[in-house]
Amino acid sequence: MTYEIALIPGDGIGPEVVDRSLPVVEAAADAHGVSLETTRYDWGSDRYLAEGAMMPDDGLDRLRGYDAIFLGAVGHPEVPDHVTLRGLRLEITKGFKQHVCKRPSYLFEGVTGPLRDYGAGEIDFVVYRQNTEGEYADIGGREYRGHDNEVAFQGAMFTREGTETIVRAAFEAASEREGKLTNVTKSNAQAYGMVFWDDVLREIAGEYPDVEVERLLVDAASMDFVRRPDEFDVLVASNLFGDILTDLGAGISGSMGLAPSSNIDPTQTHPSMFEPVHGSAFDITGEGVANPIGTVLSWELLWAHLGEDALARELRAAVRAQLADPDAPRTPDIGGESGSEAVANDLRTRLG
Amino acid sequence: MTYEIALIPGDGIGPEVVDRSLPVVEAAADAHGVSLETTRYDWGSDRYLAEGAMMPDDGLDRLRGYDAIFLGAVGHPEVPDHVTLRGLRLEITKGFKQHVCKRPSYLFEGVTGPLRDYGAGEIDFVVYRQNTEGEYADIGGREYRGHDNEVAFQGAMFTREGTETIVRAAFEAASEREGKLTNVTKSNAQAYGMVFWDDVLREIAGEYPDVEVERLLVDAASMDFVRRPDEFDVLVASNLFGDILTDLGAGISGSMGLAPSSNIDPTQTHPSMFEPVHGSAFDITGEGVANPIGTVLSWELLWAHLGEDALARELRAAVRAQLADPDAPRTPDIGGESGSEAVANDLRTRLG
Ligand SMILES: CC(C)[C@H](C(=O)O)[C@@H](O)C(=O)O
Ligand SMILES: CC(C)[C@H](C(=O)O)[C@@H](O)C(=O)O
Repeated sequence: MTYEIALIPGDGIGPEVVDRSLPVVEAAADAHGVSLETTRYDWGSDRYLAEGAMMPDDGLDRLRGYDAIFLGAVGHPEVPDHVTLRGLRLEITKGFKQHVCKRPSYLFEGVTGPLRDYGAGEIDFVVYRQNTEGEYADIGGREYRGHDNEVAFQGAMFTREGTETIVRAAFEAASEREGKLTNVTKSNAQAYGMVFWDDVLREIAGEYPDVEVERLLVDAASMDFVRRPDEFDVLVASNLFGDILTDLGAGISGSMGLAPSSNIDPTQTHPSMFEPVHGSAFDITGEGVANPIGTVLSWELLWAHLGEDALARELRAAVRAQLADPDAPRTPDIGGESGSEAVANDLRTRLG
Repeated sequence: MTYEIALIPGDGIGPEVVDRSLPVVEAAADAHGVSLETTRYDWGSDRYLAEGAMMPDDGLDRLRGYDAIFLGAVGHPEVPDHVTLRGLRLEITKGFKQHVCKRPSYLFEGVTGPLRDYGAGEIDFVVYRQNTEGEYADIGGREYRGHDNEVAFQGAMFTREGTETIVRAAFEAASEREGKLTNVTKSNAQAYGMVFWDDVLREIAGEYPDVEVERLLVDAASMDFVRRPDEFDVLVASNLFGDILTDLGAGISGSMGLAPSSNIDPTQTHPSMFEPVHGSAFDITGEGVANPIGTVLSWELLWAHLGEDALARELRAAVRAQLADPDAPRTPDIGGESGSEAVANDLRTRLG
């Protein structure tokens, strides 16, 4: 089977982790009889600084035909955040109805997480984050009625489609995993958006009688991530709460550098997009020490999404074996002294 | 000096922790020549269930003359969350312009926190949370245009007064502590409310040239709470982000049962309100095992606010000595088997 993948390496360490991971992924694909055709798009902040736009006007159309999109990272010290966010990432996630952001957290053997009481495999959950709306809606403004009376307004919008799609994806995942779903909201303080969310969830819950639903407020959930992370399996949350929980999830699993992410259109009408959770990290760009594992694990998610389960498992097994080996190279974020290239080369030797 | 304090024990374990802490606080006050006159208001969910309102119409007027207010907890399984929240707590914090919610996190000697690498005293920061507006504004609605097209809207409102007051309080605290302030926002995704917040902060920063300002996004900040909590000193955040960060702060400091809170009107025009961070905890109500320490430490904040620094220090010293003593009674939330009363009695014996 041949797959056409659009690569958008992006900013900062984005190109580094994509370029280091590619030989590993290609070797694994080869071994599984999977043929991978990549096309590279040099979109991102450098393009914005040179031409005034992160991607071309017909960017979405160019991406539409691919089987999947792989993104490195976006974000640049000289480009306003809302430009890097809205000019590329949100353009794609919204344009392609990638309502579902799926982010697993897993504490691997050989990685020392910050939590005293939890060891390998004891942190193993997946957050389903709403990916296209909610608190990230571009709604709001400021009213200047004299300096002392200025007010600012920020709006959040929740649609039936956007909410139902993420909630249903989470229920599907819960029924395939342990049959338990944790719904994270702040319905006690936010009586419109979050109560709507709860109502949609209650409606869909009726279709999944075997899934047990736990309800948690986002403050309590954050605390429980450090107190009882082993009790979570599948969580579902809004865009903002999912953002917070998945960074925290990466934190308790040892490093942001290990965390993978996927942006999925479950209807498969549009290509889905895969990327590591970490950002462009300009502080280490060019030093060759970015951890390529979050990227490799994002490729795992990509292949699983495309139905190439054996290939997905192979990539994961290589990562697992490397991390468990105390003599293997590792990058500084997980306590090692090696560079991205040494880690990637070592991963290749662990394939098949 | 005589102080008049309004007590609102509230719901669930609220009355238990207030009643257990009171003899400790009275004994300490006595020893410092401070006279404490308390008046008890049985407002809360039981009143709501009996009379249809959490507090009387003239509740604020009755509280107005006190030197301070002490709240136990509110929240009840049979009363909707927005009623317990808006019918009492927000009524008081908004009505009395208690824009500042100050919540310290401290890892005491003798308490085993969940983070492997951090021991006694290495977690020691204070979060200044906006307390009266922002994401907790009661703005929003739902538009039903047929089942599949329903949308919900949630609004957040940031005023100059509400923002300036919390930011200034945080700068004051930072300049009295280590001269470092961490500003937690999500300005990359929320370009109106949070960017206004950043602008206000930048303006006020000019008045505090000696305070170094660090800017963090709320997702990164949450991760850093488990990765490098020792580097924080004073943080400032919106209502919602402060809510999340302070629960997480309580989590990494060992227990929600130890965390104190204060709701302050810095102009001192109205009384300020003090309360433990924990909720009404109906799951343990009546069992006599609620940890009274969060309440005693909230009394510490009350006395410090009223200028009775020696008395405040005395309460803290008793708590510190008890927690450091491996033979002292402790409640189950911090690994003990004792009840609230034994802990409170023991605290009394440790007073100066
Ligand atoms: C870069 C930023 C806008 C983004 C987000 O908040 O979604 C990031 O934090 C993430 O989690 O992928
Ligand atoms: C009870 C709830 C509304 C409250 C809040 O979110 O402010 C609580 O979580 C807190 O932190 O005091």
